[in-house]
Amino acid sequence: MRYLVTGCAGFIGSTLTDRLLAAGHEVVGYDNFSTGREDFLLLARQSRNFSLVRGDVLDSQTLAQAMDGVEFVFHLAGNADVRFGTAHPRKDLEQNTIGTHTVLDTMRRSGVRRIAFSSTGSVYGEARVIPTPEDAPFPVQTSLYAASKLAGEGLIAAFCAGFGFQAYLFRFVSILGERYTHGHVFDFYRQLRAHPDRLAVLGDGRQRKSYLYVQDCINAMLIATQRACDSVNILNLGHDTYCEVNDSIGWICAELGVTPRIEYSGGERGWAGDNPFIFLDTARIRALGWKPMLSIREGVGKTIQYLRTHPHVVDTHP
Amino acid sequence: MRYLVTGCAGFIGSTLTDRLLAAGHEVVGYDNFSTGREDFLLLARQSRNFSLVRGDVLDSQTLAQAMDGVEFVFHLAGNADVRFGTAHPRKDLEQNTIGTHTVLDTMRRSGVRRIAFSSTGSVYGEARVIPTPEDAPFPVQTSLYAASKLAGEGLIAAFCAGFGFQAYLFRFVSILGERYTHGHVFDFYRQLRAHPDRLAVLGDGRQRKSYLYVQDCINAMLIATQRACDSVNILNLGHDTYCEVNDSIGWICAELGVTPRIEYSGGERGWAGDNPFIFLDTARIRALGWKPMLSIREGVGKTIQYLRTHPHVVDTHP
Repeated sequence: MRYLVTGCAGFIGSTLTDRLLAAGHEVVGYDNFSTGREDFLLLARQSRNFSLVRGDVLDSQTLAQAMDGVEFVFHLAGNADVRFGTAHPRKDLEQNTIGTHTVLDTMRRSGVRRIAFSSTGSVYGEARVIPTPEDAPFPVQTSLYAASKLAGEGLIAAFCAGFGFQAYLFRFVSILGERYTHGHVFDFYRQLRAHPDRLAVLGDGRQRKSYLYVQDCINAMLIATQRACDSVNILNLGHDTYCEVNDSIGWICAELGVTPRIEYSGGERGWAGDNPFIFLDTARIRALGWKPMLSIREGVGKTIQYLRTHPHVVDTHP
Repeated sequence: MRYLVTGCAGFIGSTLTDRLLAAGHEVVGYDNFSTGREDFLLLARQSRNFSLVRGDVLDSQTLAQAMDGVEFVFHLAGNADVRFGTAHPRKDLEQNTIGTHTVLDTMRRSGVRRIAFSSTGSVYGEARVIPTPEDAPFPVQTSLYAASKLAGEGLIAAFCAGFGFQAYLFRFVSILGERYTHGHVFDFYRQLRAHPDRLAVLGDGRQRKSYLYVQDCINAMLIATQRACDSVNILNLGHDTYCEVNDSIGWICAELGVTPRIEYSGGERGWAGDNPFIFLDTARIRALGWKPMLSIREGVGKTIQYLRTHPHVVDTHP
């Protein structure tokens, strides 16, 4: 099968690209390299089944060229930064909502009808039901990032109803592992590498997180797209356990052999719009035969090992 | 108080404008007159508390000028056509989602922090809980229109969380009454005026609708903005009863004294994306002390009386 992967040079996109190629598929990779990395595509570029198109998801003409012969779109491009939404109030709208519309409308004109989308567990806002199932009470949005992803979900579902698309909407928890380049674990590692004696932590360290290892995430996406048959398939992807930020700090420090002084900024939220607890009910994806292979601690460990052995990734990240 | 009303020349916008002026407020009306009507503003223009700004909600510069001195924005501008979304897949995105973002960001820059928004009961998709409360199970979108309004809701809630806005998100059923210019009742009246002997009905006539009379709708909006104090106030607005399309046909025919042959197109949906039953739980707005004054039948009657006495509205509607 021939896939288009938008955001192919990103953390999850490049990992998915490698997996699709390894399974014998053709992949057209699409990225504007605003945050994507050339070095994440080194493996993919060795495959004759891979081709790369440089372009933005807002550029429908280049997108249309990239969709030639494509049967399925993994639409992973987007602004993935939850925290600084209020610093650039239009970025999430542009990259995540209008970009998704452009992908959809280009698919419609190109006759491509199947799409998978990287949404977020943040769309549940401050969930009243935890673990949170896909049909939790209608949430209130708490960040521009989540609002932009929810808008993307809505557009995709409307294209399913209006134009006969089939869609897989994945609501992720935080993902980590090889090629991970943002979030708590990355920030903590970078701080401790610079000064092993102290660690600044946003909030009170009690925020609970349910990190999922990237290969487990890809497994779930591939299983879902093979086995789920509804027109609109909405699936939480996360771990069945959670940890506190303080737990992950402990694991990271143990891995690195450091004992820093921890400086908390205080408050239960790391920043305005941070959600102190995202823990998803994953019964739906489990019913399709998926389960995570790695524990949260093992995922954090893999991440630290990756960052230690890939200092250029840490050095060159903005 | 000084209000900005976007979509001031529309059905609901012009009615709200007249009510705000009658209550002694100042109103800056904003409309691009794409569907708004000059004659709906004849009464407002007699007031020295009214000023009109011609502009599109995508034009942030003109919007910013209109917001000078404004304390509260009723953002009612938008594409209100649910049915033909698939004929112009970008229109809802532009007018309802990007337009709402432009209004919000202009408010932020202008220091205006309170907004009311006309959303829709269609955001519940094919609701599993009926009557549908505001915290119904997380829905799947079924039309580009509803998806674009849900995206607007999400943006507004995110601006509340990120920038300290206060918002009133109104999820309307179909509204009718004086100045009503689209929907079943309008279509039926126009058909029967042209040929009283036959009536073409989309679907099977069994679609259930919970029409609300426009002045009851305005009452609810004014009560909510005076009495509800949360940061994000989400309120269903609808009647506590419903009728079938066939009921409204009977009332219209009785009002007009005609007995047409009814030609159903068949199927439980009037069109792809039509929802055969939107019936909202209105306990939340009722708890604020509101109730509708007119029955659904009385609302339909008022509408027909208006259309009969305002033939130019029917004649000049596209």
